[in-house]
Amino acid sequence: MADNTVIRLMGRRLRLAVIGGGPGSFIGAMHRQAARLDDRYELVAGALSSDPARSLVASMSLGIPPERSYPDGHSLINAEAARSDGADVVAIMTPNDSHYRFAMLALDHGMDVICDKPMTNTLVEARALHDKVRTSGLVFCLTHNYSGYPMVRQAKAMVLEGMLGDVRLVQVDYVQGGRAKPGPGRTTWKEDPARGGTSLVLGDIGTHAHHLLRFITGLEVAEVAADVGAIVPGRQAHDYAGALLRLSNGARGNFWVTQAAAGVENGLRIRVSGALGSLEWQQENPQVLHFKPLDAPAQLRTPRGPGTLPLAARASRIAAGHPEGFHEAFATLYTDAGDTIAARRSGTPPDPLALFFPDAADGLHGLRFVDSAIASSRNNGAWTVV
Amino acid sequence: MADNTVIRLMGRRLRLAVIGGGPGSFIGAMHRQAARLDDRYELVAGALSSDPARSLVASMSLGIPPERSYPDGHSLINAEAARSDGADVVAIMTPNDSHYRFAMLALDHGMDVICDKPMTNTLVEARALHDKVRTSGLVFCLTHNYSGYPMVRQAKAMVLEGMLGDVRLVQVDYVQGGRAKPGPGRTTWKEDPARGGTSLVLGDIGTHAHHLLRFITGLEVAEVAADVGAIVPGRQAHDYAGALLRLSNGARGNFWVTQAAAGVENGLRIRVSGALGSLEWQQENPQVLHFKPLDAPAQLRTPRGPGTLPLAARASRIAAGHPEGFHEAFATLYTDAGDTIAARRSGTPPDPLALFFPDAADGLHGLRFVDSAIASSRNNGAWTVV
Amino acid sequence: MADNTVIRLMGRRLRLAVIGGGPGSFIGAMHRQAARLDDRYELVAGALSSDPARSLVASMSLGIPPERSYPDGHSLINAEAARSDGADVVAIMTPNDSHYRFAMLALDHGMDVICDKPMTNTLVEARALHDKVRTSGLVFCLTHNYSGYPMVRQAKAMVLEGMLGDVRLVQVDYVQGGRAKPGPGRTTWKEDPARGGTSLVLGDIGTHAHHLLRFITGLEVAEVAADVGAIVPGRQAHDYAGALLRLSNGARGNFWVTQAAAGVENGLRIRVSGALGSLEWQQENPQVLHFKPLDAPAQLRTPRGPGTLPLAARASRIAAGHPEGFHEAFATLYTDAGDTIAARRSGTPPDPLALFFPDAADGLHGLRFVDSAIASSRNNGAWTVV
Amino acid sequence: MADNTVIRLMGRRLRLAVIGGGPGSFIGAMHRQAARLDDRYELVAGALSSDPARSLVASMSLGIPPERSYPDGHSLINAEAARSDGADVVAIMTPNDSHYRFAMLALDHGMDVICDKPMTNTLVEARALHDKVRTSGLVFCLTHNYSGYPMVRQAKAMVLEGMLGDVRLVQVDYVQGGRAKPGPGRTTWKEDPARGGTSLVLGDIGTHAHHLLRFITGLEVAEVAADVGAIVPGRQAHDYAGALLRLSNGARGNFWVTQAAAGVENGLRIRVSGALGSLEWQQENPQVLHFKPLDAPAQLRTPRGPGTLPLAARASRIAAGHPEGFHEAFATLYTDAGDTIAARRSGTPPDPLALFFPDAADGLHGLRFVDSAIASSRNNGAWTVV
Repeated sequence: MADNTVIRLMGRRLRLAVIGGGPGSFIGAMHRQAARLDDRYELVAGALSSDPARSLVASMSLGIPPERSYPDGHSLINAEAARSDGADVVAIMTPNDSHYRFAMLALDHGMDVICDKPMTNTLVEARALHDKVRTSGLVFCLTHNYSGYPMVRQAKAMVLEGMLGDVRLVQVDYVQGGRAKPGPGRTTWKEDPARGGTSLVLGDIGTHAHHLLRFITGLEVAEVAADVGAIVPGRQAHDYAGALLRLSNGARGNFWVTQAAAGVENGLRIRVSGALGSLEWQQENPQVLHFKPLDAPAQLRTPRGPGTLPLAARASRIAAGHPEGFHEAFATLYTDAGDTIAARRSGTPPDPLALFFPDAADGLHGLRFVDSAIASSRNNGAWTVV
Repeated sequence: MADNTVIRLMGRRLRLAVIGGGPGSFIGAMHRQAARLDDRYELVAGALSSDPARSLVASMSLGIPPERSYPDGHSLINAEAARSDGADVVAIMTPNDSHYRFAMLALDHGMDVICDKPMTNTLVEARALHDKVRTSGLVFCLTHNYSGYPMVRQAKAMVLEGMLGDVRLVQVDYVQGGRAKPGPGRTTWKEDPARGGTSLVLGDIGTHAHHLLRFITGLEVAEVAADVGAIVPGRQAHDYAGALLRLSNGARGNFWVTQAAAGVENGLRIRVSGALGSLEWQQENPQVLHFKPLDAPAQLRTPRGPGTLPLAARASRIAAGHPEGFHEAFATLYTDAGDTIAARRSGTPPDPLALFFPDAADGLHGLRFVDSAIASSRNNGAWTVV
Repeated sequence: MADNTVIRLMGRRLRLAVIGGGPGSFIGAMHRQAARLDDRYELVAGALSSDPARSLVASMSLGIPPERSYPDGHSLINAEAARSDGADVVAIMTPNDSHYRFAMLALDHGMDVICDKPMTNTLVEARALHDKVRTSGLVFCLTHNYSGYPMVRQAKAMVLEGMLGDVRLVQVDYVQGGRAKPGPGRTTWKEDPARGGTSLVLGDIGTHAHHLLRFITGLEVAEVAADVGAIVPGRQAHDYAGALLRLSNGARGNFWVTQAAAGVENGLRIRVSGALGSLEWQQENPQVLHFKPLDAPAQLRTPRGPGTLPLAARASRIAAGHPEGFHEAFATLYTDAGDTIAARRSGTPPDPLALFFPDAADGLHGLRFVDSAIASSRNNGAWTVV
Repeated sequence: MADNTVIRLMGRRLRLAVIGGGPGSFIGAMHRQAARLDDRYELVAGALSSDPARSLVASMSLGIPPERSYPDGHSLINAEAARSDGADVVAIMTPNDSHYRFAMLALDHGMDVICDKPMTNTLVEARALHDKVRTSGLVFCLTHNYSGYPMVRQAKAMVLEGMLGDVRLVQVDYVQGGRAKPGPGRTTWKEDPARGGTSLVLGDIGTHAHHLLRFITGLEVAEVAADVGAIVPGRQAHDYAGALLRLSNGARGNFWVTQAAAGVENGLRIRVSGALGSLEWQQENPQVLHFKPLDAPAQLRTPRGPGTLPLAARASRIAAGHPEGFHEAFATLYTDAGDTIAARRSGTPPDPLALFFPDAADGLHGLRFVDSAIASSRNNGAWTVV
């Protein structure tokens, strides 16, 4: 990872406030360590739990002073905005239905925002938030964290360099087993449509798969024909979604996500074929990118190995052959966003390689895709414009 | 492979005649060595090429006497049927459009048939041939050879034994690169719809993927929503097909086949998830079957390794850890069919484990699937009953 | 990773001072993030570089106050020992020849020590330091970081649980390519015997391989027959070492380390066979432990997957299927040592699962092995007692 | 595989007689199918079992006429030599102690010989047989079958082409689990030193590993320092052997073979590093050769894939991506030997690419290596000239 030059130009690290991610939260711990890994942020305030007492205890264990431990996100944003040393950046990791209101309020107060995915639960909200970000000029980072892996960055860079030629075929699948048994999984609010959104599987992991496809190929999903539903007996919330895709350049795609595949851990996988070769990447073995050129031997690309492009090198912190993982990929988004925020705040031009973090436009594309896939599924699988 | 007990009951090997597979044919050599590997057949007659001179030379090089080298399939069948020592079995490996007429004629003459896939080019022919086989009582083996791999047999046997519980989700993809470049591939007749059938990619490899799914799961594809077309600039013949599937028990499926993935060799892959676990198999590393039980460590199953079920053990000829491949898998179909033919001809009950070779019903299902997928694709991706 | 209960009992994080690891150091950044990941430490003082000006700049960029940025390790230890709020723990990541004197001084002042490997450059020093640690009652952690990987811990725990039966055969190899070209590698001081020790390859990576073998099996290397030397033309420093091993229970072993394997990244690999099964692990794909039981299907064990034992679960911070890597494995040592230090300082019994970090006895065993291997190599490969 | 041009020049296939390999023999079936796969041989005579009745039944089931089914190898050789249509080639697959006498007798009668490994049980016999072959001008093929794999041929060809530069480091290991339990394994005569030779593990699989190393690198083992013995309680016959190697060009090597690794199937593996890159190959996944160039991305080479060299292409019979295995690799030796024998017998120059099958010189090198390793082991691991 590049040195934190811009942060140093500002004379200090960014002040970060977190909303959500309290005791027992998988993603809360992930956000906080991601913020810290590359030293772009200091954690100054939090509203960690909807239970004020738990929130206070959690804040203290993280070194947040009691007076900056808030009972809820609204209090946090309003109070921090009123402080001269208030938070620069708000990170939102609450259940999906509250992303919108916290993000809008933070932007209203001139704070930059880092927000968990999916960006919102509805397309209407996504549009409004996207517009808000655009007019505000503030930074909005959406944590589609898989795009932070060095070899995903390498894949994108290879496509950008033309090493695949025109992209023709894409297959992305995200297969998990966390909801293979009847009954709710670990995170129960996700099964409640009011909180988790219309489609559990599409919001939870489908948007990751969709973003990964767009990130690597640089293409949009133009049309979708989908089948979305629940396959485990007794479940209401969607636990699988299959889709056929037509991409913005005419390429074809295949999409398959489920959380009902018994015994599978976290199987996110993508294959991209262009006129000149194919790429394959799997999240469970993230240090290897398979590259199969048209008429030359297949290659294994690794972080910092020969042929690593700058975008991938920036996302790696260690010598070749020393595995990095999920934590570091997540942190890369925070660091990219941090560098961009610091540049904005210090009036300097941002590092072009820092600008590849997912943003509100990506969030809006994600919600459009979810909506279109559900519409297609309800309409007998008809092709539906995204 | 079991000893050829039944063949010995007959007192001799089966007399085999081949139609097609002459000089330069990949699949012809494959059929002939498959017939020979386990000693169930002796090659007695051939019509190897549509060019009589080449046919004669090819026959001689295979040890076929000149008087049993025929200029075409019709002559072969008629002449062999007239001999007291004529062929018992006719193997057909000609371009797809002639499968029907040779198979029908052979059956008319009481010969058992082994036929390359797809069974026919049209659904009408497939229905007629299927009926013919049923009423004839003869054996018809369709060479969906991937079902002959030991670990594919193991997967089927594990599903049959209930080790996966109810099947819920299936993903099958067959990705090749042989048609990634514009222009015809190696086998030019396949690009001609009159000879190769309506859909090049579905006939050539889609029927393999479809059969593999049905073979392992024991389920039928009930409905399909598909997108089938040509993605390589300038090509008319289909080179990709994506489909969403609803299986006969309500399970959902995802299907993706293409011959336009630059740099990919022969990537046939399947994943099956049931209530109790998931299976994964890849043709390019065929000796390993991944089994991921619901609440126990993932397993790697290997031929003749611990836990090998009888159906898989029958399909392996060698000690554990000694790789077998495509040749042997292909031969397993010939041997199974041979044992079944010999049992029929000797009036003995067939070995139940020999009865898993693909047959005319499989061929008919394949053609129905191809037709339905094309119909769906033409009908804006609408769900179409197979 | 377990919550930092003991640290909270102390009412504060451990105060950490670092010696070495200044600008451009790979291992310095590694130590510091390892100290921080699980919040057991706060960095309070440093002597980061032998150049005072660079040391000051580096300290400031890490948030160390100028008055606690020291020009060298001796000043640091003496001054911190004199402060009421002085460092609890000193972490040493200087060139090998200074490990001994800094560690001895820190122990003299009652500070716990975390030290990079190899522990010392000579066996004499190793013995003295080991004695010192024992008599001091202080904690000494040696960063053989590969023992911090969750699946290495799982392997150890499986051996401890008797799942392998008596260990009979061990093969460990550590193959890198960093010194495949003539000339010095990245870290030039390592090629100087006065600073890097008698045997570059044995000190740098051989001690890692040796420790990994001992850690997983719980056995000692009793005798060694070795060949150690330089294979790249023009190099003096050892770049390969092969050895045959006799372990303390009579098991046999094979050992192979080199930094001259062109194109290889960081290939540390171990296989252990016992009466009841075999284990295999590779550092470059660290999330998978292969377990091959005697008469049951081979298994793939993963962190937090089914069958994960407590020692492995403690070393993982994330849900199954989310890769962790080198950073986290390194941090596990810091956290284990931190919990043990905090327990000692608070007078509470340590968590038994925290006690698996490498210590001075491991360092002494490592130096003995290096010495014995070199002696054997010089003595025509004779078996040499370690 | 190349067409059998030379065989056709002779006007017929080679007449093959087999000694050994009767009912229940793993290796007998392997030899016979290997002889048949590429049509270079017809099986005309056999002495399949030391029990004349079983021998007769076995011969008949293979289509050998009763008058050419012999009660023992001596009768076979003498009788066939006396026939005008007698066997051209004798294939020997009896227990090791009889290889020498059958091979010598066959050569005396002007027959070419194909012989299972190890060539003999003693170095004295190996020298005599090697001399005999040389003076006879006849062909002697020793079935070190792993050298027949396409990707092993590719590795050799890449070394020959200079793609690795000077070879510096080699690691070969052959790990099996067939003798992990106390008591004799499947083939009991192998445990009897009089029949199986001085060192079970070295004769059975050590000679394979040794030959593989020599085949790929083109180097000889000049000196060895070894530890050879029995690790499973109660066993007398050697079940493990470790060795350090010095190769003829000064390169260093590591060697590790065992049949006592519980749960392991057939793990033969080799790594070769030269000045310009490294190669890795594993028998259990034989279609992939890893090539790691010094300063370019790692490659996966596959049979018939891009960059396949002629020596490898000759050893493959099928399109890229269609797995071949142990059977085909074994057959490649038979075919190479057959083409060379046919050329000799027809007085035409042999195909240079057919000349890579192992021969009597390889057998002699193997016995020398076994003897030297045992001598070293008995001499406290001293370096011993091979």
